[in-house]
Amino acid sequence: MLEQYFHIEFDPERTLQDQIREFIVNLILTGGLPLDEPLPSSRHLSKMLGVSRNTIVLIYESLVDSGFIEARSRKGFFVNHTFHNTEALSTNLVQEENASSPDWSARFQKQPSNEINIVKPYDWQKFEYPFIYGQVQKDFFPLEQWRDCVRKSMSGQWNKYWINDLVDSDDPLLIEQIRTRLLPRRGIYVESSEILITIGTQNSLYLLANLLCNQTTKVALENPGFRDALNIFSLFNAKIHRQPIDQHGLIVNDDLKTCDYLYVTPSTQVPTGVELSKERRQRLLNLSTKHDCIIIEDDYDAEVNMKHNPQPALKALDKNNRVIYIGSMSKSISPGLRVGFMVADEELITEVRALRRLMYRHPPVNIQRQLSLFLSLGYHDTYLRKLRVINASKLQRINAAIDRHLPNMRTSEHVSAGATSVWLKAPEHVNTEEVAWLAAQSSILMEPGAVHFTAENPPQNYFRLGFSAIESHKIEPGIAALKNVFDHFI
Amino acid sequence: MLEQYFHIEFDPERTLQDQIREFIVNLILTGGLPLDEPLPSSRHLSKMLGVSRNTIVLIYESLVDSGFIEARSRKGFFVNHTFHNTEALSTNLVQEENASSPDWSARFQKQPSNEINIVKPYDWQKFEYPFIYGQVQKDFFPLEQWRDCVRKSMSGQWNKYWINDLVDSDDPLLIEQIRTRLLPRRGIYVESSEILITIGTQNSLYLLANLLCNQTTKVALENPGFRDALNIFSLFNAKIHRQPIDQHGLIVNDDLKTCDYLYVTPSTQVPTGVELSKERRQRLLNLSTKHDCIIIEDDYDAEVNMKHNPQPALKALDKNNRVIYIGSMSKSISPGLRVGFMVADEELITEVRALRRLMYRHPPVNIQRQLSLFLSLGYHDTYLRKLRVINASKLQRINAAIDRHLPNMRTSEHVSAGATSVWLKAPEHVNTEEVAWLAAQSSILMEPGAVHFTAENPPQNYFRLGFSAIESHKIEPGIAALKNVFDHFI
Repeated sequence: MLEQYFHIEFDPERTLQDQIREFIVNLILTGGLPLDEPLPSSRHLSKMLGVSRNTIVLIYESLVDSGFIEARSRKGFFVNHTFHNTEALSTNLVQEENASSPDWSARFQKQPSNEINIVKPYDWQKFEYPFIYGQVQKDFFPLEQWRDCVRKSMSGQWNKYWINDLVDSDDPLLIEQIRTRLLPRRGIYVESSEILITIGTQNSLYLLANLLCNQTTKVALENPGFRDALNIFSLFNAKIHRQPIDQHGLIVNDDLKTCDYLYVTPSTQVPTGVELSKERRQRLLNLSTKHDCIIIEDDYDAEVNMKHNPQPALKALDKNNRVIYIGSMSKSISPGLRVGFMVADEELITEVRALRRLMYRHPPVNIQRQLSLFLSLGYHDTYLRKLRVINASKLQRINAAIDRHLPNMRTSEHVSAGATSVWLKAPEHVNTEEVAWLAAQSSILMEPGAVHFTAENPPQNYFRLGFSAIESHKIEPGIAALKNVFDHFI
Repeated sequence: MLEQYFHIEFDPERTLQDQIREFIVNLILTGGLPLDEPLPSSRHLSKMLGVSRNTIVLIYESLVDSGFIEARSRKGFFVNHTFHNTEALSTNLVQEENASSPDWSARFQKQPSNEINIVKPYDWQKFEYPFIYGQVQKDFFPLEQWRDCVRKSMSGQWNKYWINDLVDSDDPLLIEQIRTRLLPRRGIYVESSEILITIGTQNSLYLLANLLCNQTTKVALENPGFRDALNIFSLFNAKIHRQPIDQHGLIVNDDLKTCDYLYVTPSTQVPTGVELSKERRQRLLNLSTKHDCIIIEDDYDAEVNMKHNPQPALKALDKNNRVIYIGSMSKSISPGLRVGFMVADEELITEVRALRRLMYRHPPVNIQRQLSLFLSLGYHDTYLRKLRVINASKLQRINAAIDRHLPNMRTSEHVSAGATSVWLKAPEHVNTEEVAWLAAQSSILMEPGAVHFTAENPPQNYFRLGFSAIESHKIEPGIAALKNVFDHFI
């Protein structure tokens, strides 16, 4: 009798049927059940586990369908011997006596784990006041609409399209949606051959750095700026030029002339949230033409911009293919899906595509197909509209709360209407990393700002508060609680 | 009256409801409908389009829900002005007169598009006899089971888990399934911290080459061997050593001593399909320990091996962490999903993980979660068992057909029981690239073999016939038809 094997601790949040099936499959595959004894009868097992007999019958039937077990007449259910996996693989080769492990550190050409990174706690959702940047508030995710797209992508004509290897191409439906739906909204009109799907913004930058940079390449980054861009370009040994920013975004002056690439976040500067002024945009484009620089425009966040008539992308004004435009679905749908795109001169896209083929061939087809439906059925637009309203209200709330509790820490009045964070400045002597540690003890998550400065010896008194993941009604009490933490330092 | 806008050409393979909704959303978002006129009544539109009125009512309701249109009492439905997007973005910046496009070719540090690649026609499914390698036969894909996993991943406790950015981590459930379910079958027992999820085998190799190679690094590749491995290691300027193979796989001799990395496909050699003998495995491991080489074991295909007691992985015999093991779900589930994994010394995995964080953070969370359910519920095992039976029968059929029609083109008798292709040799003077062109005209897809040789001046008379994508009953007539094509050359 095999009853002794059947002790299951049930997880109340999953269906009993799934858990029992999983348990039995596991017993079978690990060789835990003998071949010559019948499984407990459904009546018996249902009593043992306190589960309805019908459930057990359904599970046994599905296991027969899957071939894990077989029915023998009048004897009951038995493990199918082809799934019974007790034979140990023969591993009787003899290793040399003087064996030794490799010296990995001598082999690494680079040690990316040593880089300074933005640290985001894995368990940020357990914080009462998660002022974290780049995550989303789940309650608003249009789960029903997404489910609908997933269902459609797996049925009818598209049934199994997505199980194929596309080699180096992309889902043509998604390219078309980006071309005709997303890009015109930023003022961009291009051909399909000028668009490439990537696994997010970082992946776009990585592909570009890998293709375009060596130790003689000079790349201008905003300071403070996007830390991951610094890490990526440094990985390919590019020389980094750090260009300061002010309330109107990147300062455009002759210091940029000698740079091969100018990485900018014009729509919503990372991390300060300011918008690049129209006059600066003009100067930047002129400079790039005159001095043969390429602009890498990271338009992250632009689609959640709340203004009715936002500034068009730099790419929209670019007549000479000097702008490489990178966008992402992280903000406007979800960062977990990992989908981004790049728009550039076809000549460049051809090479990036060939490089992508080597790097990972193409982003997963099923996600591309689901996304193209999400766009074509208008779900994305509806969600964006909702997000814009929510973000506008949250921005108002956080501004009011800061005016009340931390009025002296403001850094800028010109935050972009697409910003989902605010950038603040504590008094000079305050180290915001220490503040963050103490804040965490009060269940407040905030981001120290030093990591966003690309130069050595960064100021320690800046910090960022993201508001895309925190619930609206938590913003005011969260800022009030943060003020109490700051009081220990000021 | 807006009737003139409503001309839709219906695709018979999609639902009318989706197509009409998509059409109206598109009209609204492109500013194609004026704000001050009502949409056609449901009665009117249903007549115009020849669609039931009920369908139109449902569509209008869903558009109201999404906010695209609004009902005004007694006047009908109107476009919601917040979605009406006619304002052109102001793009009135002036570009310099002497503008010019960049000289991209001078900027490329590498030109991956010039590499020789295995060419797979995008439309391979239209071939009557697709002897293509690395794609799957859709009819057998367990769509119902996959749908079940997708549904479960989006409901209950896992509801929205997958919309989060995991930064540099992976779904712990998938890691656990790989650790306890997949790896023990290959004789491998490791900790979670020794496993990393990647976007397929190529991505694993890319990460390794990027981390470990510079121009002084020497990498041994099998010749003939996996072309993409050659392209990837070359991209990072590694010196390539080409090691010949024979009927027992890679020849292990002192020529390998000076290599830093030995890339091998022991389970099923690419492209010949032979299995590395036990004696060679022993010598390879000894050599790697004695001369401080690292083995990169590509175990691609091993899980569809039809033998009851296959050889364990090299990694299973590795006591000193000298083997980096890379696996993939391409063969055993689908190449379109793009999921692979790497198993190695924790010290190495830590660095690869940090590099992956820069390259694309992590593979999409939803796919990881769906896959972990597919494994834990036993669906993967059932599918593998089916695939093994199908492949065994197909291998038998193709061998019989070759014996009958192309008996002199055999190259090896020791093809691995996990092979999904055969490797053949035409008479010396035959160029199989020319054969392939002519074969395509008879709707036969075959792969010329020259691309798999990593040295210059490769022999032109080899070719590969994959049988994972072609239907069983097409194999015999396909080989017979191929024989007719060859008759033009011999």
